[in-house]
Amino acid sequence: MAEDTRLDEEELMLAPAPEEEAEEDARPDDRIDDERHDEENTLKAEYVNAVRSELEAGDADAVYALVEPLHPADIADLLELLDRDVRHELAGAITDLMSSEVVAELNDYVRDDMMEALPASAVASIAEQLETDDAVQLIEDLDRSDQRAILAELDAEDRHAIEQALSYPEETAGRLMSRDFVAVPEHMTVGDLIDFLREDSGLTDDFFEIFVVDHMHHPVGTCQLSWILRTPRTIALADVMKRDQTLIPVMLDQEEVALMFQKYGLISAAVVDENDRLVGQMTVDDIVHIISEEAGEDVMLLSGAGEGDINEPLRDAYKARVRWLIANLGTALIASLIIAAFGAAIERLVALAVLMPIVASIGGNAGTQTMAVTVRAIATNQLTRANTGRILMREFTVAALNGVTIAVLIGFATGALFTPTLGVVIAAAMVINVVTAGLAGVLVPVIFDRLKQDPAVASSVFVTMITDSMGFFAFLGLAVASGLTS
Amino acid sequence: MAEDTRLDEEELMLAPAPEEEAEEDARPDDRIDDERHDEENTLKAEYVNAVRSELEAGDADAVYALVEPLHPADIADLLELLDRDVRHELAGAITDLMSSEVVAELNDYVRDDMMEALPASAVASIAEQLETDDAVQLIEDLDRSDQRAILAELDAEDRHAIEQALSYPEETAGRLMSRDFVAVPEHMTVGDLIDFLREDSGLTDDFFEIFVVDHMHHPVGTCQLSWILRTPRTIALADVMKRDQTLIPVMLDQEEVALMFQKYGLISAAVVDENDRLVGQMTVDDIVHIISEEAGEDVMLLSGAGEGDINEPLRDAYKARVRWLIANLGTALIASLIIAAFGAAIERLVALAVLMPIVASIGGNAGTQTMAVTVRAIATNQLTRANTGRILMREFTVAALNGVTIAVLIGFATGALFTPTLGVVIAAAMVINVVTAGLAGVLVPVIFDRLKQDPAVASSVFVTMITDSMGFFAFLGLAVASGLTS
Repeated sequence: MAEDTRLDEEELMLAPAPEEEAEEDARPDDRIDDERHDEENTLKAEYVNAVRSELEAGDADAVYALVEPLHPADIADLLELLDRDVRHELAGAITDLMSSEVVAELNDYVRDDMMEALPASAVASIAEQLETDDAVQLIEDLDRSDQRAILAELDAEDRHAIEQALSYPEETAGRLMSRDFVAVPEHMTVGDLIDFLREDSGLTDDFFEIFVVDHMHHPVGTCQLSWILRTPRTIALADVMKRDQTLIPVMLDQEEVALMFQKYGLISAAVVDENDRLVGQMTVDDIVHIISEEAGEDVMLLSGAGEGDINEPLRDAYKARVRWLIANLGTALIASLIIAAFGAAIERLVALAVLMPIVASIGGNAGTQTMAVTVRAIATNQLTRANTGRILMREFTVAALNGVTIAVLIGFATGALFTPTLGVVIAAAMVINVVTAGLAGVLVPVIFDRLKQDPAVASSVFVTMITDSMGFFAFLGLAVASGLTS
Repeated sequence: MAEDTRLDEEELMLAPAPEEEAEEDARPDDRIDDERHDEENTLKAEYVNAVRSELEAGDADAVYALVEPLHPADIADLLELLDRDVRHELAGAITDLMSSEVVAELNDYVRDDMMEALPASAVASIAEQLETDDAVQLIEDLDRSDQRAILAELDAEDRHAIEQALSYPEETAGRLMSRDFVAVPEHMTVGDLIDFLREDSGLTDDFFEIFVVDHMHHPVGTCQLSWILRTPRTIALADVMKRDQTLIPVMLDQEEVALMFQKYGLISAAVVDENDRLVGQMTVDDIVHIISEEAGEDVMLLSGAGEGDINEPLRDAYKARVRWLIANLGTALIASLIIAAFGAAIERLVALAVLMPIVASIGGNAGTQTMAVTVRAIATNQLTRANTGRILMREFTVAALNGVTIAVLIGFATGALFTPTLGVVIAAAMVINVVTAGLAGVLVPVIFDRLKQDPAVASSVFVTMITDSMGFFAFLGLAVASGLTS
């Protein structure tokens, strides 16, 4: 025991100096700076315009003075707010403020745009300062030839790490994981571990857990730092660690990883390969980014808005959205065919043309409601085979209640403004259409999910097709059947 | 120095025993158990049905045996998958498995439902085992009288902490924060801190950072545990800590808190009151929950699907959605009025009735696309006063490109199937409507945001009103103006 403590004293002398930020003055309100930020913590328009003017005036020093006090995340915001050309000028005026921190915070599209504008050596030097997972993000969307040029500029170790990450498909744990983690054998004691951590200056500064592995590098447990700090030095890690652990397969899709983190309340988790060997770790701050991305994605897919990022190049936004509009043109044409079949009836009773959009519109809304709920429930693993029947019944019931309510309202209004028979016709058509919409809104996403397709992508088109067609068909068909158009 | 180390030895003897999970056997594949889980890590339908059958048969022991090996998060899933009555039966059969962990993992609605079914003393005993923020979540949605009954059963300390949390508005940092944190003075050394942490067994086990405060309890810096572990014992915290910190005002909305965490890549952050005193902390795993919730919320609001949770009581789902449908009934009626005004024209050229839904439908889609993108950009603070003009131009351009593309397609098709004049009319109407939809899709959410209203809530109704009205008006109006219906 005495020897341990003597070594401990020697270690104390040798350990490297820590964070050197002590010299900075503390300003607790650092983040909300009223000169530059508004109450939502975004940069004020006046400030951004001031930067723009100085850039137009060509006063690089003034620009630098304006931008220098910003936090890297805010510099990234500033770059995103500016137009493409102005952005490049700004980058030129503040080159030594363009740290790897700023680059890591940039919106994906803006970052890709800026990397394309830089020579390969410049990108490589930014990449070298970043952690592997951030460096991968930096170059993964560039052209293969650009990537090769940049990789050629890196030193062998960085290049190998990045190439290895790129060998995994996009949006998998293998691509996104961090390769910097602490893994130690289980016979190690807390004291040994603390000494090891103090010794090894190459270790990353940011970790919350230690992974404990066996001789085959299989993870056997994890130790949170807070436990280590509170445990006597002599205790073996095997007695401190938590054996009950969540392992993430290296090929697991990022959305599934995020769901696991949320479900089990994880802070970090080990990533293992096909042989269950520990190859990386993912931490909850990666998950935060993934959740945000995936949640935003579903909205965009449901409405056919493509990537839905305002920084997306205009041409890509156009291509994605027009494709969607053309698909909907197809479903609108189907509805038109149905209307055309009832053309004679409409000629005889033009009130049908006035009222038919109401039925289709409400049906479309009801379908969208149900579809949004269903897609989200599928995405968050709340709707599974185990409760599909129950949920279908629930949605049918809500749709029926909604349908009857709206039917009564529109039925009376129509009966009063037109004829009672028409009132009954539109009421009946409304019930039929809203119930159909409710069922379609559940079944279409569920069927896509069973076929292993992403429900958010194509459900909209099919649900709209069903609700529009049924809406017009039910209304016009019942109108003819009721003899109103004879 | 010698004294420090001797004390350290004594401390080693006295420190409390750590995690007692060492006795459990390690099973790395604990989470993905093929008997009960499918490949998406959700419970298999067969397993859930097996539980159901045993419950129906009244075999409580069999039920217990089936459920006992599950992780608390999976027990929570199981409860959520079952019907309400069956759920209560299950809870009755596995009372000692209904740990506070399970309760904390339950979906909000399911948890409220179960808490309502239990006596106040039972809820109170669950609450006592939870951290304050989880206990608050447990009771915050119950009736005031239920809450009072439960609070009365708690001991004074717990009751006071919960009442204090409830004094803050829902969804603010003050309501959501954890009151368990470690705050120490800056003159303390690393060694003192480690001793303090080992001594105080009342401290929470899960923390990643130490907050450093001045004598007025104002936060002056933070220390990550990884830095502490790697720093010699003699160094003062003032020299280790990071002074540059993000402080969260206690009244800040949860969505803003989440955005700050994402923007600055935080793991945890200090919550301060109006006097800048440290009152709590929020950690990134709270944020994960918030992000998921808020992101899902926007989709639901945009489509009028209420809370959009499949566990929501049927009556609430009905009320929320029917309200939305009635609002849309209103906008549909406005469109009908416009059509009615052109009734005579439609009578003379029934092709108008066949084609007009196409224009309105594509306009509606284009509007929804733009609106989804804009609402998300506003929610993630990417669209601010500083770049609104630029984004408006961008969306106008994309809308114009889309409009012209669709107009050409439908124009030729109509010209071929009907008459060239009608082809030109529908093409022109399409361009007008799609461009209008694009502008509305940006301006309506932006205007709501400027008026400090949530753009996601009411934008849909207004955008739809504009696109439907303009769609019918432009098409029918141009048709009449072109002389087709004379």
